[in-house]
Amino acid sequence: MNGTPFESKNVLITGGLGFIGSNLARRLVEFGAQVTLLDSLIPEYGGNLFNVTGLEDRLRVNISDVRDAHSMRYLVQDQDYLFNLAGQTSHMDSMEDPYTDLEINCRSQLSILEACRNYNPGIKVVFASTRQIYGKPDSLPVSEDHLLRPVDVNGINKMAGEWYHILYNNAFGIKACALRLTNTYGPRMRVKDARQTFLGIWVRRLVEGRPFEVWEGQQLRDFTYVDDAVDGLLLAAACPQLNGRTLNLGGDCVISLQDLAELLVEVNGGGEFKVCSYPADRKRIDIGDYYSDFSRIRAAVGWEPKVALRDGLARTLTYYRQNLEHYV
Amino acid sequence: MNGTPFESKNVLITGGLGFIGSNLARRLVEFGAQVTLLDSLIPEYGGNLFNVTGLEDRLRVNISDVRDAHSMRYLVQDQDYLFNLAGQTSHMDSMEDPYTDLEINCRSQLSILEACRNYNPGIKVVFASTRQIYGKPDSLPVSEDHLLRPVDVNGINKMAGEWYHILYNNAFGIKACALRLTNTYGPRMRVKDARQTFLGIWVRRLVEGRPFEVWEGQQLRDFTYVDDAVDGLLLAAACPQLNGRTLNLGGDCVISLQDLAELLVEVNGGGEFKVCSYPADRKRIDIGDYYSDFSRIRAAVGWEPKVALRDGLARTLTYYRQNLEHYV
Repeated sequence: MNGTPFESKNVLITGGLGFIGSNLARRLVEFGAQVTLLDSLIPEYGGNLFNVTGLEDRLRVNISDVRDAHSMRYLVQDQDYLFNLAGQTSHMDSMEDPYTDLEINCRSQLSILEACRNYNPGIKVVFASTRQIYGKPDSLPVSEDHLLRPVDVNGINKMAGEWYHILYNNAFGIKACALRLTNTYGPRMRVKDARQTFLGIWVRRLVEGRPFEVWEGQQLRDFTYVDDAVDGLLLAAACPQLNGRTLNLGGDCVISLQDLAELLVEVNGGGEFKVCSYPADRKRIDIGDYYSDFSRIRAAVGWEPKVALRDGLARTLTYYRQNLEHYV
Repeated sequence: MNGTPFESKNVLITGGLGFIGSNLARRLVEFGAQVTLLDSLIPEYGGNLFNVTGLEDRLRVNISDVRDAHSMRYLVQDQDYLFNLAGQTSHMDSMEDPYTDLEINCRSQLSILEACRNYNPGIKVVFASTRQIYGKPDSLPVSEDHLLRPVDVNGINKMAGEWYHILYNNAFGIKACALRLTNTYGPRMRVKDARQTFLGIWVRRLVEGRPFEVWEGQQLRDFTYVDDAVDGLLLAAACPQLNGRTLNLGGDCVISLQDLAELLVEVNGGGEFKVCSYPADRKRIDIGDYYSDFSRIRAAVGWEPKVALRDGLARTLTYYRQNLEHYV
């Protein structure tokens, strides 16, 4: 990904201290962008100040919440790009507390877009959506033509949040597009628990020398290394032909969770896991197998995953061996 | 539709003083149900006390708002059926004030379902969804397998509201299903303006002896007479095989708006209309042609429209010739 479109540009990243946001921020700073990170630092979410260690003098951190319409109204002004990554990501939490999920993933998206419409209609917005909104697939791999049938409150609200972006592009001319991310992993992900990704807790346990749990194990998934996801977000921002579109990202391979666990142990040079059955509350929102067809974004702008799963897992383990204390 | 399932049953209708709600209430009272109507009587919406004239002693009216979680919590208790019809219906209003649409069509649906989950998990819920959530169709007629691509805020929020119902059925066992209504018309619809249906304002103008406006005119649509829509809602409530499903209703024929205008004038025995181009703010959320494939609900429970368009229009005109003063 060529950095020219971002040189000296003003860029706002919601959820900017989180996993994907902070990796994106690092790249944008290298490209010479003027980066502002907005993050609420809610303890259950992905924000972590350690994620921008070493960059403190090269970007601006603004602690606030996307639910705060007044701060959003101020912060979107004069921005060239908005990477809209803030979100409640836990499927389980959304089922326990659907209102908070709605406020963040649904209502706040409206207020961010309203702020753009009223105070900065020339901005380009890239929204991080999720494969979760497809629900349990009818057929694999899943393309963007698959029906959306979300299986949890989080999926429903993310679906609405995504569509607000497409609507504001089509009806109000706010340039926007959405990427549906599959399982993204890599340095700076939340590893304290499984709220962001189950791979986080696997990696933590392995680095701590403790066994991790694999639920069921036969489900197929695909995984995107965070640098590849960042490439996708940057292309989505830079390429006007994606305005008004929703596009899948995907992984370099398809793997069962049990095989993934074995690969992770192998790359780690040792470790243990046990295969368990699903807890009942988790089972009822399970989606079975999922992997995505990302041919649409490949055809449109040439995106494809470049980091092989084995390499990505190795880099991730290396990162957490060095930095685990800042994440637990 | 056989009334036996509803005899002596407790039935709550949100939006119960509105167009469809009040027609449904009349039928349920005939069937011997104990009916409670909940309505906010917000002046821009469809609620009208005149809609239940003559029934005052045979049902209970409770003026409150679906956004009031406390009143909902009380009112869902001891109900056997909930017909969940309350909604903000204006596409244009949703674009001017997206937050109110979100509060009513999205957040309130969550709180109604949470009330059922916590205080009456045995209830059966039927949700009135809309063909608006399909957006501009790729192919006609539109079946339930068509992608949802809403073109306005109202469509996005109704889509989320519908999915909450399916989710609470699948994940929490709250029996629920959703019907996607197409253009519904008939006695007791709002005719003051076009907020509920453009046919309302056409009928009003015609009865007042004034010309009405047809925008563009070549768009194809289908129409469901309200008695047929009520049949569909009652079947949806009575038939457990529909739990967890979303099903289209439809019309007995497909007609262009200009042909509809001509038919309405003919049935009225006179009148005038003029064909105008779309206002710009309306054009950008137009969906082109739409008519629905209702074969799924026909196959499942035998529903199909019984009232021909010409008859339905005649009955509607007769009603408003007699009662217009109560609607303007």
